[in-house]
Amino acid sequence: MGQEQAFAALAAQLWARFTQSPSDRDLHGRSESHFAPMPPDAVAYPESTHEVAAIARICAAHGVPMIGWGAGTSLEGHALAPQGGLSVDFSRMARVMDVRPEDMLAVVQPGLTREALNTELRATGLFFPVDPGANASLGGMAATRASGTTAVRYGTMRSNVLALEVVLADGRIIRTGTAAPKSSAGYDLTGLFVGAEGTLGLITELTLRLQGQPEAVSAAICAFPDMTSAVETVIATIQSGIPMARIEFVDGESARAFNAYAGRDLPLTPHLLVEFHGSEAGVKEQAERFGDLVADFGGAGFQWAHRSEDRAALWKLRHNAYYAVRALRPEAAPITTDVCVPISNLARAVEETAADIAASGIPGPMLGHVGDGNFHALLLPDPAIPGDWDRAKALAGRMAERALRLGGTVSGEHGIGMGKQGYMQAEHGEAWDVMGQIKRALDPDNLMNPGKLLRQN
Amino acid sequence: MGQEQAFAALAAQLWARFTQSPSDRDLHGRSESHFAPMPPDAVAYPESTHEVAAIARICAAHGVPMIGWGAGTSLEGHALAPQGGLSVDFSRMARVMDVRPEDMLAVVQPGLTREALNTELRATGLFFPVDPGANASLGGMAATRASGTTAVRYGTMRSNVLALEVVLADGRIIRTGTAAPKSSAGYDLTGLFVGAEGTLGLITELTLRLQGQPEAVSAAICAFPDMTSAVETVIATIQSGIPMARIEFVDGESARAFNAYAGRDLPLTPHLLVEFHGSEAGVKEQAERFGDLVADFGGAGFQWAHRSEDRAALWKLRHNAYYAVRALRPEAAPITTDVCVPISNLARAVEETAADIAASGIPGPMLGHVGDGNFHALLLPDPAIPGDWDRAKALAGRMAERALRLGGTVSGEHGIGMGKQGYMQAEHGEAWDVMGQIKRALDPDNLMNPGKLLRQN
Repeated sequence: MGQEQAFAALAAQLWARFTQSPSDRDLHGRSESHFAPMPPDAVAYPESTHEVAAIARICAAHGVPMIGWGAGTSLEGHALAPQGGLSVDFSRMARVMDVRPEDMLAVVQPGLTREALNTELRATGLFFPVDPGANASLGGMAATRASGTTAVRYGTMRSNVLALEVVLADGRIIRTGTAAPKSSAGYDLTGLFVGAEGTLGLITELTLRLQGQPEAVSAAICAFPDMTSAVETVIATIQSGIPMARIEFVDGESARAFNAYAGRDLPLTPHLLVEFHGSEAGVKEQAERFGDLVADFGGAGFQWAHRSEDRAALWKLRHNAYYAVRALRPEAAPITTDVCVPISNLARAVEETAADIAASGIPGPMLGHVGDGNFHALLLPDPAIPGDWDRAKALAGRMAERALRLGGTVSGEHGIGMGKQGYMQAEHGEAWDVMGQIKRALDPDNLMNPGKLLRQN
Repeated sequence: MGQEQAFAALAAQLWARFTQSPSDRDLHGRSESHFAPMPPDAVAYPESTHEVAAIARICAAHGVPMIGWGAGTSLEGHALAPQGGLSVDFSRMARVMDVRPEDMLAVVQPGLTREALNTELRATGLFFPVDPGANASLGGMAATRASGTTAVRYGTMRSNVLALEVVLADGRIIRTGTAAPKSSAGYDLTGLFVGAEGTLGLITELTLRLQGQPEAVSAAICAFPDMTSAVETVIATIQSGIPMARIEFVDGESARAFNAYAGRDLPLTPHLLVEFHGSEAGVKEQAERFGDLVADFGGAGFQWAHRSEDRAALWKLRHNAYYAVRALRPEAAPITTDVCVPISNLARAVEETAADIAASGIPGPMLGHVGDGNFHALLLPDPAIPGDWDRAKALAGRMAERALRLGGTVSGEHGIGMGKQGYMQAEHGEAWDVMGQIKRALDPDNLMNPGKLLRQN
């Protein structure tokens, strides 16, 4: 292997911003999920696109794998280094390069987090809407095609990334897309790199669509007697054309977790959390129409959050769900699942999953971005209980299979990474091979984030 | 060449649905634009995906080019056969396969036109929003990433195609995407085939997102003293967050053409045509806010079309623009241009183009989907006037170059086809080579719509 030569060249290029220190390697070999640590052999901290290109040329010349690193919030082991190599950490490429209010876009570096972007945008009247919960890096969010609570209104990263700059496996720098709102000029390479999980190239700059801060915002939480009535309220809301900005489902177990974690007193039944964006009159009308639907389906106990601090508290509740649920069983080794089904099968998918979890005896609160047909169970197997882990893995597997059987997908927003390759053949069939053909065309030596997403030979 | 063997095999497979008759070849060698006829050597009329796959296997075995044919409405020569081969006409694959109101989607065959789909959807309360003007086939619209008047609200084909079935160059049948509203499971192959202009495969089935018929619709036309005030009204409307369903610009020359063609009496100044979709109260509020902006920028002469027949008349005016403009100079050989720029440069792009056209002496009314930064000039050179054609081509070239200089794209919605390959290097640089790498990976013998979009060696 030419790895030693490559590392010598990288050290000469980057000085202290190239390191093989155990602590750096260790830090870049961990993830927020259940995967065992898989550290890279070295870490680089580039400060410019040209440095990333130089890194790629050196790694390509010596056959060294390159794995992008953003904020490390992936839930499917995307940034682990199962084949060693170099972790390319974008923390020193985290600037807002340009904000163009008239074009409603921002040009950013990949290491910038979504919260940092929104802080910088505060004075402009604009915001970046995609909200996966975690304060992820925008490069990482593009790479996993992230979405979250607001996708029902504003779309996923797929529709909010307008253009990219990408360093390819051989060090070429390309630009995809323009600042024009649309184009029919050639293959949609932007869309190809969004969701490619770093397997086709390293994203070094993103042009992101922004949204105007709504004139009025209103949010609420309300309780339902059972899952079916909550889910059917969601379906009716979608079909009636009410433009929700967010519509989130949490089950009774999640409500119990919220109460314990945040000192709330929610009834231990399913809830919906909603938010409306628009003009004063528009939001009022939407809220009223939604209230009528909730009543039709037996919902009650509305708590409206009109003030921005009340809304912040409401969404903090939702965003802390992972920690709240973990606190239900601190000794557990959690497994986060992520499926997405057609809306017509959402009630069935949620109910069958709930019954399956209940029968397993493993705690597994459910919640999700149900306006998109996307939901999660946070399974909490206790490693000290024999068989618990295997039962939880089997539950997660049945969730994925159920999603496919109901016409859906094994990942709504977390991606494939190292966690879900086992379902790719079932979901895509020969189309998975087509992904492999594209991968080999652009990265014939399999140096870009090897071991993820694609069929492993 | 094995073309004779291929054609013998196709005739055995398809019987009368394979033909080499001069009239069929002639029909499939013409386009709605200025390109010289380029007929295929034969035409096939498949009736199923499996027939398309059989056709592809036969053509692949004998090196015969395959060119998809929908409604023949392309403006960039997409469906011409510059290297001969087989035109695959989808007119016998034009059915609605499934409508799923709860999922707000329809599954259709590629030969179905958008108007036929909307006729079938009439009773469901749903509609398919993408409206390029022409009654194009949905397969063709996907292949060119079509958009049109409603993209400002509902997006282009890129965001309205949820899943595809595609026959690859080697006859493999793949499915991309699912009926779930979103997915993070692997490369976005749906997005790759949308806009690939048939160069990567033949689309044999589409799963399309539908929209609920709005409860209320209101449309209007209003006049402006000059282009700048019209365009600045558009920018202000976007920035104020008013959710236009349509916002179309036409210049004074277009108004003159409309008056002559449709017996109207519009003032000979720039106009905006707008439409709002929403609840009764929402549409009223949007219309009022838009009216205020129009007044701020000196617009006047509002004509509201509240009744559906009045709206139909208004949009018929817009949809017939091509014919109305052609009638200004019936002897002309029209050149339709199509550029798209960032909104911040829209006024400049429109003004510079108008000045350039005026200086040329060639009639060239301008209109466009300005909410997307997309506009067209319909240049009317007279072939009988020496130099007119060349001057018009040069004008069109300067429009494309201007769009690039202003940060935009050489095609907002018509695609590249045979007409705009000359600008691809300037727009995409090395990314154009990446498109070529993907093309060669999936179609190494260059049999799928050769001569279009990609670099020709």
